Amino acid sequence: MPFEGASARLNEYLQWVAARVDEGLAGYLPRVQPEARVLREAMEYSVIGAGKRLRAALVIESAYVCGADRERAMPVACAIEMIHAYSLIHDDLPCMDDDDYRRGKLANHKVFGEGIAVLAGDALLTQAFWLLSTLPVVASVSWDNTVRIIQEVAQAAGAEGMVGGQVADLDAEARPPDARLLEYIHTHKTGALFRASTRAGALLAGADGETLERLTEFAGHFGVAFQIVDDLLDVEGDPEKLGKKTGSDARQGKLTYPRLYGIERSRSMAEKHIASAQSALAPFGERARILRELAQFVAVRRA
Amino acid sequence: MPFEGASARLNEYLQWVAARVDEGLAGYLPRVQPEARVLREAMEYSVIGAGKRLRAALVIESAYVCGADRERAMPVACAIEMIHAYSLIHDDLPCMDDDDYRRGKLANHKVFGEGIAVLAGDALLTQAFWLLSTLPVVASVSWDNTVRIIQEVAQAAGAEGMVGGQVADLDAEARPPDARLLEYIHTHKTGALFRASTRAGALLAGADGETLERLTEFAGHFGVAFQIVDDLLDVEGDPEKLGKKTGSDARQGKLTYPRLYGIERSRSMAEKHIASAQSALAPFGERARILRELAQFVAVRRA
Repeated sequence: MPFEGASARLNEYLQWVAARVDEGLAGYLPRVQPEARVLREAMEYSVIGAGKRLRAALVIESAYVCGADRERAMPVACAIEMIHAYSLIHDDLPCMDDDDYRRGKLANHKVFGEGIAVLAGDALLTQAFWLLSTLPVVASVSWDNTVRIIQEVAQAAGAEGMVGGQVADLDAEARPPDARLLEYIHTHKTGALFRASTRAGALLAGADGETLERLTEFAGHFGVAFQIVDDLLDVEGDPEKLGKKTGSDARQGKLTYPRLYGIERSRSMAEKHIASAQSALAPFGERARILRELAQFVAVRRA
Repeated sequence: MPFEGASARLNEYLQWVAARVDEGLAGYLPRVQPEARVLREAMEYSVIGAGKRLRAALVIESAYVCGADRERAMPVACAIEMIHAYSLIHDDLPCMDDDDYRRGKLANHKVFGEGIAVLAGDALLTQAFWLLSTLPVVASVSWDNTVRIIQEVAQAAGAEGMVGGQVADLDAEARPPDARLLEYIHTHKTGALFRASTRAGALLAGADGETLERLTEFAGHFGVAFQIVDDLLDVEGDPEKLGKKTGSDARQGKLTYPRLYGIERSRSMAEKHIASAQSALAPFGERARILRELAQFVAVRRA
């Protein structure tokens, strides 16, 4: 499937990432014994062939910008995609956002049942850390940078990152709309993992402190822009392209950019963040070409 | 509270472990911002002041047997207890074992709701890996042994370990009782984390291969004995001491040792495993005194 809004060249690149990530995942998912076969099926259902692989692309390109071969970044890219997939499985549960569909397919719990869906998420999260622990062997990452990457990812995925954001998001439905809360939710719920993807890519390539700072700045703006556009698509996107119903944020009383700032102002905020993301990449020249195109794509995507 | 069945000396030891683990956890749990405060409360509710801390004791004593100071093992002990607590929160959910009580307290989801309970479990699991990533700094563990410990724990907790066992356990209710399936469930659902606790303790102390083998053998027998006694307590234990109703395995059609082998034969199997656990410790002499007492306690405990 082509990614609408992406240039032909970026489309080709994203197709390549998607294919390589799927190949990687097939090898990196756990080999479970027959007694637990359904677990592997449920994990595959949500992580293989899924989504735009933006987080994987950020890992790969950020490693590339820092001088690493793109292939070396694959295990980290796959680990981050496992964590992203786990978060979507748990978010879709009836006790959370209660979504029956995800990317035009039935949600994991609608196919495998809630119990297996919870466990498939748990297993994907755990497998991601297992995979990161293999970096010294499979990607010649130093032992100390491996530990730093694990720390970065754990911090971004846990209570001080993604899970904290999801808690605030669940809770926000009962609170008055507030700019501080909106920022907390989005920098944590989605921003933290974009940031960790970018930083983990740089760390695996052994980036120096200044390079890491620059890429972190890029990732911060990239994440906010992504989230604003996500909120906008839920208001004015095409349900068929999105693979899910629109308007669900409003129905659930979610705190979003369009709700707090209106559509026009939200759009111009997204554009400002994309511009800031682009300027953070200035020192990297031609090597950051794809990162630049990714930032552009995030603003104009239709799904 | 005293641990019935433990000698006065072991009781004193377990009280010390419990106090030190609670102190450690209070410092190692994430500092969440006010927007997600309920998450920290839900994590504390299930991990602080909880249980017999057998896994923590295995980490600590296995490190001690290998020559490390007990205090150095505390972060690993706390990380393993976080993982144990997460697994209990998720197991108790209505979509899994549907238990309203755990250790005489309301289950996490009965207090905080299912959504927060799922997220508190997710956050505890993630925080455990974060904590392990701090070992080089907080416990002077080498970078490479830190990565090995993370790998050991991830493998034991995930699809090839604890989560795989829970999937088979959920599934077993619909299958004919079978010795191979029973062994798979128990070596994975509870055995894997006992094994990882013991091995992680040895690894943090820099144990050699032979020592690691011996302790692994000990942990294998310890885990099976623990599970057989657990199954027996659900048949003939005292609900007041256990802090939950008995007979729930039978009601749910769970595959257990007493169901497959009867009470007498199960008891003698447990005794044989305790004896084998004890002999694996022979080479360690006086340094393994507490590990020996722990194995004894597991067989005679009433809760």
